[in-house]
Amino acid sequence: MATEIPDEIRQKGERARHAARRLATLDSRTKNAALRAIAEQLHNAQDEILQANARDVEAGRAAGLGEAMIDRLLITPQRLKAIADDVLAVVALPDPVGEMFDGSTLPNGLQVAKRRVPIGVIGVIYESRPNVTVDVSALCLKSGNAVILRGGKEAANSNAALVRAIEAACQRSGIPEGAVQIIESQERALVHAMLRAHQYIDMIIPRGGAGLHEFARENATIPVITGGIGICHIYVDKTADLRKALPIIYNAKTQRPTVCNALDTLLVHRDVADTLLPQVADMLAAARVELRCEPRALAVLEGHPAVRPATPADFDTEFLSLVLAVKVVDGLDEALDHIHQHSTHHSDAILTEDYNAAMRFINEVDSAAVYVNASTRFTDGGQLGLGAEVAISTQRLHARGPMGLRELTTYKWVILGSGQVRA
Amino acid sequence: MATEIPDEIRQKGERARHAARRLATLDSRTKNAALRAIAEQLHNAQDEILQANARDVEAGRAAGLGEAMIDRLLITPQRLKAIADDVLAVVALPDPVGEMFDGSTLPNGLQVAKRRVPIGVIGVIYESRPNVTVDVSALCLKSGNAVILRGGKEAANSNAALVRAIEAACQRSGIPEGAVQIIESQERALVHAMLRAHQYIDMIIPRGGAGLHEFARENATIPVITGGIGICHIYVDKTADLRKALPIIYNAKTQRPTVCNALDTLLVHRDVADTLLPQVADMLAAARVELRCEPRALAVLEGHPAVRPATPADFDTEFLSLVLAVKVVDGLDEALDHIHQHSTHHSDAILTEDYNAAMRFINEVDSAAVYVNASTRFTDGGQLGLGAEVAISTQRLHARGPMGLRELTTYKWVILGSGQVRA
Repeated sequence: MATEIPDEIRQKGERARHAARRLATLDSRTKNAALRAIAEQLHNAQDEILQANARDVEAGRAAGLGEAMIDRLLITPQRLKAIADDVLAVVALPDPVGEMFDGSTLPNGLQVAKRRVPIGVIGVIYESRPNVTVDVSALCLKSGNAVILRGGKEAANSNAALVRAIEAACQRSGIPEGAVQIIESQERALVHAMLRAHQYIDMIIPRGGAGLHEFARENATIPVITGGIGICHIYVDKTADLRKALPIIYNAKTQRPTVCNALDTLLVHRDVADTLLPQVADMLAAARVELRCEPRALAVLEGHPAVRPATPADFDTEFLSLVLAVKVVDGLDEALDHIHQHSTHHSDAILTEDYNAAMRFINEVDSAAVYVNASTRFTDGGQLGLGAEVAISTQRLHARGPMGLRELTTYKWVILGSGQVRA
Repeated sequence: MATEIPDEIRQKGERARHAARRLATLDSRTKNAALRAIAEQLHNAQDEILQANARDVEAGRAAGLGEAMIDRLLITPQRLKAIADDVLAVVALPDPVGEMFDGSTLPNGLQVAKRRVPIGVIGVIYESRPNVTVDVSALCLKSGNAVILRGGKEAANSNAALVRAIEAACQRSGIPEGAVQIIESQERALVHAMLRAHQYIDMIIPRGGAGLHEFARENATIPVITGGIGICHIYVDKTADLRKALPIIYNAKTQRPTVCNALDTLLVHRDVADTLLPQVADMLAAARVELRCEPRALAVLEGHPAVRPATPADFDTEFLSLVLAVKVVDGLDEALDHIHQHSTHHSDAILTEDYNAAMRFINEVDSAAVYVNASTRFTDGGQLGLGAEVAISTQRLHARGPMGLRELTTYKWVILGSGQVRA
């Protein structure tokens, strides 16, 4: 059953496993000093990093990457400064490792508690954005985990330069060798091998599109944090306050349409459709949003320039762009059923002034984040008080929603006795 | 990539998914009433259950099952009463669903909290013991989860009769149809299909030997709780109090040798080997324990009737029987290294009177349960205050060590706003 493990995975896996054992007991002061050294080294190595990035950008242009992709790839001095500042922000976050919780003394005198410990070795597979290299390394280091990175080939030179800077900073800060490593081979088979290297890696975080998540789930023998795919809904109840509803809809759809917590489907109670929908259409048309409407919504908005008929697939699509699916529903029950069927269980909201409707929505909608009268855009580690995030989970085990430092830890039971035996 | 889903998995999966949606919002009173009805129905259906069990036992004998296996399979009126009593014990446990935690009000006025919710649909794959059918059903029901069971073929008639009793009790207690189901087909392919039915099942718990866990990890596209395999160590430090050490070693090895938290390897500091080992050997010989000793331990115990040389494999074996591997070490460092290399990270203990040795052990040993001066046999949901357990996890995500009702839940973020949008 065991697949042959490529040399690079085995060597880096063993180094990471070795590093993880030492990282687990490293104090916060040492880890924070290393993070400060990383921020400094990113500054010191700016020329090398920008030159490496320029090679990637040039190769990307030659390979015909679109301007949006090139922009994602690009590191400027300002962006590098922002990346370094993000590392310093992680210094300021509390270290979750060592937290004791659920403690008690049992009737037989055993003192029992859970102690928070790092997960061990985290594997992160991601696409072209090179800032992920630094973000993820800083969060893993702070939480006492070793990390094995596998970035996209478009950013290979940039990532290598960034990891060299991180390694240099770690080396002079007492961080064990192998704490942060990147897979250099660009062979696709390495991703498959990494997903099955459960002797070395304890958790896989894929950061990318649905295809990457599906590939990881199908092939991994290591627990995978799936997530990041958000078909997000807002249901406007008949009692909604339109002065709140319109800004929320506008914000959820347009503030950053390319991310997973942006709005995809607007469900509107039939009683307010005639009032609300034309205002929504005008407001969103001004932001160049296209509305894809099922027949009842279309009937209300007939002839509006930004409007076209929806296909059934539109209600199962994460648009990641200025497109919004719109549907009129008979009431809360139909909204709940629609969300149950179509949501990816990321972020869903109700806009209502009715207490009972709000309660039913938060009780019955089973998504990582359920909202009353707020924009879905808040599903984000920074916004929700985690300080930073390594991923947004839409699976049900371990962690749901934004994952910060604490979600990069597990626990062990510590049991202090004085000779107890089991009867 | 999608495999063809067998009809039985699809039908039961859809029913379970449907039931899970309703179970998630069921109040504790209804769930507890259903559990009481199950206990009652097990009593009422005693004749049917015992007859079904007799058929399994007869078939097992005809197929040449050993007496230990037959005993695991056997249901007597007393055992059925004990199974029903275990269900009533679950009634008494607090319902974890609905707990609110990590709540706060953000600077923008958003009220944010996590709310504990059921995982959804749990798949449990287990071997011949029919009591698991009832135990697991009761725990899943109490925590608001639907469950799809897949028991061993040796217990097929018993399990079917037990599930009929559970279904009858659920039906008259307002529990949605499909909350507890069992896969009836005995085709091996059904297990494989179940492991990949991620559209229906949210978590897989394999309960059985290492082979089943390995099969689940290799083939599942659903998160799997691996665990239950314990190569457990006790390290006797040079400062250990032998009046505590001897009873702990005896208890850990002999109190129930067939379970995962029983002792497998005894590591002894060289300074106390001459004193301790002969006493251990005499004590354990009286309990018919065979000692497999590496050369230094063998030198101390040479000629003792219960002693024979160890092979290297003995230090990587979960014995599940009256066998103990014994090794003399130079001190704590060697003990820590040995445990790091050979432990399955289930339960490991140090016996010491030295504060610093105890601290280093609990800091550096990375197992689900780490002990000072107590028997490893306490790694058990009942013993550690969880009331009951559905599994003992030795993986690192979601839950570690004994898993009770709370570990059968996840959480959602509930975010209450008054019109907030993201800047």
